Parts: sequence; C-alpha cells; structure tokens
Amino acid sequence: MAPQKLRVGIAGLGRMGKRHANNFHELTPRANVVAASTPDAVERDWAAENLHGIQIFKDYDDMLENADLEAVVVASVTAVHAEQALKAIRKGLHVLCEKPLSIDVNIARSVLSEYEQSLKKHPQQKVMCGFSRRFDASYREAYERVEKNEFGPPVLFRSQTADMHDSSGFFVEYAKTSGGIFVDCSIHDIDLMLWFLGEKRQVKSLQAVGVVSVHPGLELSNDRDNAIATVEFEGGKIAALYCSRMMAAGQEDTSEIICEKGSVRVNMQVRKNHVEIHDSLGARRELPRHYYERFREAFITEANEFTACCLDDTQPPISLQSSVKAVFLGQQLQRSLISGEKIYFGERSIKI
Amino acid sequence: MAPQKLRVGIAGLGRMGKRHANNFHELTPRANVVAASTPDAVERDWAAENLHGIQIFKDYDDMLENADLEAVVVASVTAVHAEQALKAIRKGLHVLCEKPLSIDVNIARSVLSEYEQSLKKHPQQKVMCGFSRRFDASYREAYERVEKNEFGPPVLFRSQTADMHDSSGFFVEYAKTSGGIFVDCSIHDIDLMLWFLGEKRQVKSLQAVGVVSVHPGLELSNDRDNAIATVEFEGGKIAALYCSRMMAAGQEDTSEIICEKGSVRVNMQVRKNHVEIHDSLGARRELPRHYYERFREAFITEANEFTACCLDDTQPPISLQSSVKAVFLGQQLQRSLISGEKIYFGERSIKI
Amino acid sequence: MAPQKLRVGIAGLGRMGKRHANNFHELTPRANVVAASTPDAVERDWAAENLHGIQIFKDYDDMLENADLEAVVVASVTAVHAEQALKAIRKGLHVLCEKPLSIDVNIARSVLSEYEQSLKKHPQQKVMCGFSRRFDASYREAYERVEKNEFGPPVLFRSQTADMHDSSGFFVEYAKTSGGIFVDCSIHDIDLMLWFLGEKRQVKSLQAVGVVSVHPGLELSNDRDNAIATVEFEGGKIAALYCSRMMAAGQEDTSEIICEKGSVRVNMQVRKNHVEIHDSLGARRELPRHYYERFREAFITEANEFTACCLDDTQPPISLQSSVKAVFLGQQLQRSLISGEKIYFGERSIKI
Amino acid sequence: MAPQKLRVGIAGLGRMGKRHANNFHELTPRANVVAASTPDAVERDWAAENLHGIQIFKDYDDMLENADLEAVVVASVTAVHAEQALKAIRKGLHVLCEKPLSIDVNIARSVLSEYEQSLKKHPQQKVMCGFSRRFDASYREAYERVEKNEFGPPVLFRSQTADMHDSSGFFVEYAKTSGGIFVDCSIHDIDLMLWFLGEKRQVKSLQAVGVVSVHPGLELSNDRDNAIATVEFEGGKIAALYCSRMMAAGQEDTSEIICEKGSVRVNMQVRKNHVEIHDSLGARRELPRHYYERFREAFITEANEFTACCLDDTQPPISLQSSVKAVFLGQQLQRSLISGEKIYFGERSIKI
Repeated sequence: MAPQKLRVGIAGLGRMGKRHANNFHELTPRANVVAASTPDAVERDWAAENLHGIQIFKDYDDMLENADLEAVVVASVTAVHAEQALKAIRKGLHVLCEKPLSIDVNIARSVLSEYEQSLKKHPQQKVMCGFSRRFDASYREAYERVEKNEFGPPVLFRSQTADMHDSSGFFVEYAKTSGGIFVDCSIHDIDLMLWFLGEKRQVKSLQAVGVVSVHPGLELSNDRDNAIATVEFEGGKIAALYCSRMMAAGQEDTSEIICEKGSVRVNMQVRKNHVEIHDSLGARRELPRHYYERFREAFITEANEFTACCLDDTQPPISLQSSVKAVFLGQQLQRSLISGEKIYFGERSIKI
Repeated sequence: MAPQKLRVGIAGLGRMGKRHANNFHELTPRANVVAASTPDAVERDWAAENLHGIQIFKDYDDMLENADLEAVVVASVTAVHAEQALKAIRKGLHVLCEKPLSIDVNIARSVLSEYEQSLKKHPQQKVMCGFSRRFDASYREAYERVEKNEFGPPVLFRSQTADMHDSSGFFVEYAKTSGGIFVDCSIHDIDLMLWFLGEKRQVKSLQAVGVVSVHPGLELSNDRDNAIATVEFEGGKIAALYCSRMMAAGQEDTSEIICEKGSVRVNMQVRKNHVEIHDSLGARRELPRHYYERFREAFITEANEFTACCLDDTQPPISLQSSVKAVFLGQQLQRSLISGEKIYFGERSIKI
Repeated sequence: MAPQKLRVGIAGLGRMGKRHANNFHELTPRANVVAASTPDAVERDWAAENLHGIQIFKDYDDMLENADLEAVVVASVTAVHAEQALKAIRKGLHVLCEKPLSIDVNIARSVLSEYEQSLKKHPQQKVMCGFSRRFDASYREAYERVEKNEFGPPVLFRSQTADMHDSSGFFVEYAKTSGGIFVDCSIHDIDLMLWFLGEKRQVKSLQAVGVVSVHPGLELSNDRDNAIATVEFEGGKIAALYCSRMMAAGQEDTSEIICEKGSVRVNMQVRKNHVEIHDSLGARRELPRHYYERFREAFITEANEFTACCLDDTQPPISLQSSVKAVFLGQQLQRSLISGEKIYFGERSIKI
Repeated sequence: MAPQKLRVGIAGLGRMGKRHANNFHELTPRANVVAASTPDAVERDWAAENLHGIQIFKDYDDMLENADLEAVVVASVTAVHAEQALKAIRKGLHVLCEKPLSIDVNIARSVLSEYEQSLKKHPQQKVMCGFSRRFDASYREAYERVEKNEFGPPVLFRSQTADMHDSSGFFVEYAKTSGGIFVDCSIHDIDLMLWFLGEKRQVKSLQAVGVVSVHPGLELSNDRDNAIATVEFEGGKIAALYCSRMMAAGQEDTSEIICEKGSVRVNMQVRKNHVEIHDSLGARRELPRHYYERFREAFITEANEFTACCLDDTQPPISLQSSVKAVFLGQQLQRSLISGEKIYFGERSIKI
C-alpha cells in the first residue's frame, strides 16, 4: 500500500507562494498539494496550468471550508499571516506560516495562545513559522558543532541580512507594510540568535542606529536602509546585527558564532556556485542575487520536514514561542532604531 | 488533464541505481519509475520498501519483456552497461546509461551503431550516456561563458578527478573490472575536455605517466593510483589531466579552461557547504567526501532533462558519439600509462 | 655627497621599541638611529649588541640632553607616552609616538596644544601618532579606492581588532593600565573610522556592550574581553566595532567600508602567508598570530614615511588632531561599555 | 666595533640589477654595495644618483680588477651570466648569479667545475644561483612541513609559472635569447621540483607539448607561449608542469605538493594584498602583476642569506649542482616541446 501523503493547501500564490506550492507539489514525496487559494486571478491561472489536479479558490475561507486539507501553508502577504493562521488553527489544521507571524507582537502572541488552546483538543496539531535558514545544511552544521561544544560556549553572535540593491522603488513601497527592516530582514538573524544563544535566554538590553542612504522615502514609513544593532543577553552573551537594502554584489547574509575556543562562520564567503573567473579585473566569483537563490534547498528541506512532523507526530523543528519572541525583539529593535533610545529589560528597565 | 509522465525502468539498484531510482521517482515530476530490476535480493527488498507501486524484477530481460516502459536507466555494473543498453535500444526504448558505456571502445561503438540503426525505425528514440558534470550548474555557467567568447578562444583545458582515499581495499578490487583509472575516473574530465575544446576536434597525441603509491596491488590490474597526462589537439589546443585515488581531504574534482583573455575555474575552491571553522588550527572548510556529495544536484537535473528530451522529442543534452570518443581516449591514455609510450594520431602516427 | 640622514633616538626598547629600533636602523635608508634610552638593563644590553655605534641611555631626559637628535620615537609604556612626547616637542624635535597618545583625552589634548605652540617657533616640526594600519598597503588601497569614489559614498564602517587568546594572564595584568579594550585595541579601528568617514565629521551618539568570558579579573579594571559598539555620525554614516582578546586562530583584524555602490574589505580572509594545507581536516590556512606578524611591513613603511616627512618638510601622514579625537572616542566607548548608557553628543546630549 | 660588512659588486643594472642593488644596499644590514658595472650609460646615471658612495664601472672586468670586492651579484643579461660568474669564481669571489646559470647545460656545467676547482684554493668561497622562490616564506613553510613528514611521502609535484600577458612584443623579442619557456620560466618550477622530490633523484622520462596562441613569432625561436609537461622520477614520483605567457589576471605562479596523506599548496589563491572588492561584478581580489610584486620579500631574504653564508662560512642555501641539473631538465623539456618526442633516461633510453 502506498504510504499516506499529507494533504496540503497553499494560501497565497505570489512569489513565495508559488515556490512553496512547487516544493510541496513536486519535491516533497510525502505531501500532496490538493488546493490553493489566492485573490489574484493571474495567480489562479498559474495554478491551473502548473498544479495539476488541485482545487483552486479565490477565497481562503472557501478553501478551508471546502477542500479536504490536513495542513495549510500560509504564504500570503504578511498583513494576513496571523489571521489566516488563526483560522486554520481553529479548524485543527497543521500550519506552516511564512515569517514573520505578524509585525505586531500582540497579534503574534494571539496566534500562539490560540495554538496552545487548540492543542488541548488536537494534541497532534503542528504550527510552525517558516524560518528557512534553520533548514539550511550549513546553518545546521554550525548549530550541531556548537551544540556538541566543539568550540566552547558561544559568546558573540554576529549576523546580517543584506539584500541586493533594487532601484525599482520596491523597498520604499514595501516598507509601508513590512514592519521595518528589523522585522522584515533581521527577523532571520534574530531567530538564529535565539537558536544559537538560547531561545529562553533573557534579553537585558538592545539598541539600534541606522540611516537612509539609497532609498529616500523610507523615513516616511519609519524605516531605514542600513541599520546596526547590539543586543545584550543574561549570562554573558552579546549579539551584533546588521541589515541593509543596498548590496551591490548580491545577497550577503552572513553569520558568525564566536565561541570561547573557536568560531563558526556561515556564508562569509558566499558564492553563487563553484565558478571563478580570472580576467583583467582579477579573480572573482559571483554571489547569489537574492535570498531564494541561496536558500532554495533549505525551503525544500523545510517542506519535507514540516510534512514529516505532521505525518509522524514529532516535534516541529522550530518552536512557535521562539518565533513570537523573534517578532518581539524585531519590533523593539525597530523602536530603538527610530527613537534613538537604548531599551532595557528586567531590573534596569525600571530606572528608565 | 494531468500531463503525461515518462514510464521509467531502473536497471541495477546498487549505490548509483538507488540514487537514480530516487531521483526519477521523487524529484523528477515528469517521470514515474514503474519498474526496477536487480539480481540482488537485498536490493529488491530495498525497492519494495522504498519505491512504492513499482514492479520489481530479478532479471533485466524480464523487466524489458513485461514492464510497460518508455525509458530505461542503466545503472548496473559497468560490465553489463553496453549489453543492457543494446537490448533496450533494440526494443525502441529511450536509454540513459551510466558512464562509461563500456571499458572497450569497440563495444561502445557497437552501442552507437545499434542506436544509429534504431533511429531509422524510432526517430524519436533518445540514448545518452550520463556524464553528470555536464548538468552541474557551475560547469554549465563555465561552458556558457566560454561559448559566448567572454575570454577569447580556449587554449588549455586542465582537469582532474581525485577521489578521497579509501583504505578498505575497494579500489584494488574495483580496478579488476574498471578499465583503469583513465577509463573510470578521468572519463569525466575527458568528456568535459571534448565539450570545452570541441567534440569533433582531432587529437594529435597523448601521453600518460603514473605511479602506485598507496594502493599496492593495482599494478596487477595494470592500474595506477596517481596519474598525469597530456593531450594535444589539432588547432592549437592542449589538455592536462590528473587522476588520483589518494586525496586526504575529500573529493577534489577541479577544472580550468584557460583562454586567451581569461580563464574559468570550476571547483578550484571546492567546499562541502558554506561553513568555515576558525580554531587553533587556523581557518578551514571541509570538502565533499565523495562524488555524489558534490554532484547530487547535477544528477537530479540529469534525470529531469533526460525525461524532458524524451517527452518533448528534443536533442539529448550529450551526444552518444562524444561519449564513445571519450571511451576511446580513456583507453588510449590507459594504454600509454602502462606502456610508457607517447601515442600519436594522424600523420605522425604513421612514422611511429 | 651622501644625502642627509635623520638622526633618531628611540625611547623604550621593549617589544615595540626593539622593532622600531631595528626598522629605523636597518630598513630606513634615510634614517640613522643614534641613541636609545631605556630604564631596563637587559634592554640596554640588547641595544649594545644589536644597535652598533649608538649612544645608550638609562634615562630619557639624559638622552634628550646629550644625544644629537633630530627626532624621537616614543615606544615606551603607554603611561609615559605623553610626557616623553611633550619633552621632545619642547626641544623642537620631531616625534613619532606609539598609539595611544594617552589613555586620558585631556592629556592627549595637552600634547596637541604643546605641539601647536611649538610650531610657531619650529614650523617644520613634525609630531605624529603611529597608527600603523594607515601605512599598510591593503588599507591604503582601500582608502584610495574609496577616495576616488569608486563605490559611491561610504555608509557603514565596520571594523574589529581581535587578539589571539593568551592564557598567560597577560591581558588581565595589562588591563590595569591599558585604558580598557576600546582605548587599547579599538583605537586602531577608531582611527581608521575617522580616516574613512571623515576626521572632522561630528559624532552624534555611541554605545557599547561587552562581557568577560575568558579572562576573569578584567572586571576589576573596568574592562571586558569581548565588546561591540555602534557609533552614529552626522551626515548619515554609521560604524560598528568589535574588539576581542579571545581569538583561537590568530589575530583577526578586519575592516569593511560599505559604500552605496560597493564595498571594500581588508583582512576579511586574513592569512599568515600563501600556504594552504589539505588534509583529513579539510582545507585550511593559518592566520597571523599577532599584530606585528600581519603589519610588520606597515611599521617599516611608517618609519620610512615619518623620516621622509621630517627631512622633506612635508605634511605628516596622520594629523595629530585626529589621533586626539581617537583617544576621546575610545574613552567614551569604554565609558559606555562600563556604564551601560548610550552617550549622545551635540543637541541631543542636552536632554540627557 | 661595528661588525664586518660584505663588500658587494653588482654586475648589470637592468630591471633585476637595480632591485638587487637596492636590496643589498639598503635592506641587507650586513652588506655594503661598493661597486657596480653596466655598459648602459643610463643605468650608470641611475647608479650615480641612487647608490651613494659606490664605484661605477662601464666594464665588468674593470670592476673585478679595480674594486675592492668580496662578492659579486651577476644580474646582467642571461647570455653573460656564466662568463661573468666564471671570471668572479677565478678571482676567488663569492657569486650570487641570477637564474638560469646558462641556457646551455654544458656551459652551466663548466661554471660548476670551475667552482669545484676553485674551492680547493678558496674553501670558503660561495657560489649560488638565485632561485628566489626558495627564499619565499610560503615555499619554505611548505618545504618544512613536507620535510617533517606531516603528510607522508610526496607523490606528485605540480607547479606552474604563468606570466601576465604583455602585448608589447617583449616576449617574442626576448625568446630569441631566453633559451625557451622551459629554460626561462619553468626553471623555477624545475628547481622547486628537485627541492621537493629530491635533488639527486633520477629522472626516468619527460615529455612536453605546447602551442603558440597569443604571441605569433615565437615559433621562429623554437618557442611556445603555453606548454605542459610531465616528468617521471625513479622511486614513484611524478611531476606536472605548466608555463604560460598569457595570463589575463596577473602573475599566477602556483605549486602543489601532493603527498600520501595530504597536500600543501602555495599561491593557489594568490593575491596582490589583503583587499577584496564587492561590487556589481561580484567579489574579487587582484593578483600580483609580475614576478617581483609577488616575490619581492624573497629577494630581500635571498640577499641577506647569501650575505650571511659568505660572512659566516656556512652552507649556501641552494647547491650549485642542483641548479645545473635544473638547466639540464629545462633544456630537455624544451627539446621535447619542439620535437614532440618523449625523452627517456637510464635503461629505457637505450631501447629508443
């Protein structure tokens, strides 16, 4: 008998939605995409042509109502992530939700508490936020080596998300609803910071400064195109973050975990592939031009592992609590970036 | 209506057979593996467990007779590549045959001529030898850049296949039937050499020297564990090859195409992934430990592109003539390696 | 006629003093070391043996009084840098003073104002703080490319001074008088930050956090072994600094100048030499183990260029004002590190 | 009392002569350049301006006759290397001779035998051919690691000398007297090959092929602009060489010593300095543009070590026998390159 396959519905078929749909449909042997929903007619046409045999809905609620689903992948615009996740949770469905859960930590918290409620009725239900870098083979090796204590305790986590420059005006438009560069870009670094330094570790203080350099108009959305931050944790751990929308060479997402007896670096010599050119300009390699070019494999692994944890009733690879905490820290960093104030937590914060 | 899927049978379920089976079964959306054959009972058990819904045969001929196939992937031991390919060709099936076609160029030629005959009856039939590196994204970018004349005409092709050291005695055992290191390892470099310098370009001379260093016993099979060669082509092109069974750090397969105005290098800084370690030993990266770890994606692309050319009746990505020429050159290099003689072709050879 | 040579006295013959003495004596063709002073008898013996034909003094004042000097190199312990520089300035001598001028900005300022007074009498007098990285070929190329506007305006300067771990207890002892990690280590990065972003550019705010990880006892000297900082400048420039006393692999001093249309990196792939090892651990290179191993050539260039500016009456390569500002910023960063407060300058600072 | 300094005369003040003169004059504390000879009036003017206090001669013999010399550096054109070396040897002077000793092995041998004769009268006399790479810190580290048996016995030595393309026609003109690309360029690789694999190790066979690609006219001097070779030694060692006059990116001189349990690479990621650029073309570094840019430090070390061995009567760092053998192998490789024949030595050669 053929093994059971997870029946998946995809909410949203924009850039990321199409990728998730393809990954679950074609590259996740234990899953079947059985339905998709999008308000966009062009996207529905794409689905009809590319996702054979699935049901296509204009309306998300319709899909939840009428399709025979076990799991939903929320890949719509950030503004509806939480609402769509909540509805699926209430129906007892497994949910893989694109990052961030929300740009507002209170809304993110409401998803978490709905899930905690739902678990009482549906103890096998899985809800996970899709932080793709956690599924990347390099980040995983780094994590395993640190966990095995190969380099002693971690002291400093340094990480950046730096997008390639886009002169189309996209970033300015996008900033109106993105929650800001720390919520949109750095959320990955924040998630990794929690992963490497301890998801339950208490933050003592954080602080950010930034500038608008190449995307005038970002100020109007309380955003910046380059920003740096420091985060201080209990227990002698610190973190330095950088985010940018201005890279000339490509997507430069890098992380370092500096431990007492060594350090692990990921992506510090990031390259598109294994080609090098020697010509009159010297020796050069090209970089990935966007996030998906670098992390495509991680998204495929994410689809397969999410599917496996639903079918096998195992622990989801990422805890929802941690993802809510990431939203909280992203929001606080953005607040510090705009206000110019250092923010303290715990005892110290009382003095301020 | 769902699109037609290519019905594929897999011959041989050893190490490479399993990989091909999985790639066609799970990661090639336009193909279905419908049958597999292997004389090995353990492998048949593996198939029963892992390739759901397919027919499993002990005997290759049985599979050809009884399964409803459009294409066969020949992934059995090298000794039966040609025979199995011939039988499938005679039935009008598409064939993807693992490299090398044969260790004997005359047998390889017989496969080619059978295919040429068969094409008269089955003009849409595709037969291709699976030189996986041609499907690797880095090699392809290198090829496209050279083809676009970015660096002027190529002058020197330098390439190596260098396996990680295996102290189990495997290489000595394997050498008994492998055809020798130039036919088994360097066949990839030879294929790439033809691709980059011209598949129809005439070879003027070739010459090889080598040693047995770490695998005593190879001499008995007329083989070596490290060898270097030069090849001279008409039209002012030369090639330098290196093959080894002795690498300490991992699989070190590299190629350089040195052109008049620049050069392209592939894998010269090969790495397992995007991790670097800084510790008391310095700064280091790890290497892929075997061929498949580096080229897995290329095999998946191969499966998908072979499938597409069968379904869409387009040109196979690699010509069978070129693959036969590769066997010829591999055999000649091996001959030079053992005899110590330089071998000349064309006019010069008459003098010798 | 042989060209005139600058008559140089060396103050202090500790680790750095010996190096300066050798560089001026043997590798600076236009200079002659004619005298040296040190209170340490062993160091005087070293001088007698290695610096032939020079006068050797126990006492710095004696040397100033009795040797026929045109220039003094102050390479003694930091605590007497300023005092020795002041005395030489008052005698109208040229001065090359090791970094930092002082750990106290007020003392550093007093050196500057003494020099400004002295210039009225000795308009050809040169006084310079020896920030060696400014003489490094790589930093210079980076600076020239940025100055030529190859990458558009700089936005972010990111830099670190990270010493190799020393388990001898040296760092804890040294911290008692070093002024702290931002004054001792990061002073180089601060100097470079001013060089790249503008020596006269106004700082708006700065902030630092840090920890004691591997050198317990540093707290007692108000110091840390790992610290990160952000600095905000007028005109849309920001800087991120890291300093550490804990590196396992070697001296890891790196800088990035991220501009609107590209970035320049220095030392990001720092290596001891051009050797790579491939063995069972992968592919690795070694790093310089200390500052001098990486920057020896820069110190030689510094000696030669300081000599040239004295002999030729040209502008010193580094302005003393900028070096005083570096001390100021180092002290402020150290203050923020210990207090936990963000520090504001200009208008904003009034509110605090 | 000041230590004795070696009194050095420089023969030839062309490109290399000037460098040697400066290195001995200014950067070799134990040497004094006391004289120089060159038939070129412009070069003599340069010496008068730059080498203060030395005697300047038009004629080499005059210098030998009239200057008070202990050592001669032969840096004139290759055609007179041997003759000038012979004359200095006969006068009992120490000699550092630029590579190659001669383009004719018989002449090179005559220098060696003259030296062996002379040693009877002047047992402290030193004669050495200046193979600068042996003084490079990276090559030395590689050699020491191999000598210490860190990676087991060496099996393959692979090395190249690849000059940056020069479109001025220099290489064609130069080829008329250079002895050919294997004698002029590869002589360095040959010297290193002997150093790493054993200076007394017997060669069994060698073979070379090459082409004229970008410097038409080289054929007329029996030369090529790209060539590859294999060399086979007794005892299971092999070597692969590449030489080129066509590099677009810079001087690409690389070597690998592949041993049974690991390998050492030198210059495989050669770079001008520690700068990297990230811009719209990707991530790149520049390369040294010529030999001296990469190996300047090695020449300075050579000057200092040659001086030391003369003053201290220690073994010269490079044996003259080995340098003569290098000329022999260079000439044989050039012969094979032009004739197309593989050349055998020892028993096998009798059969041919």
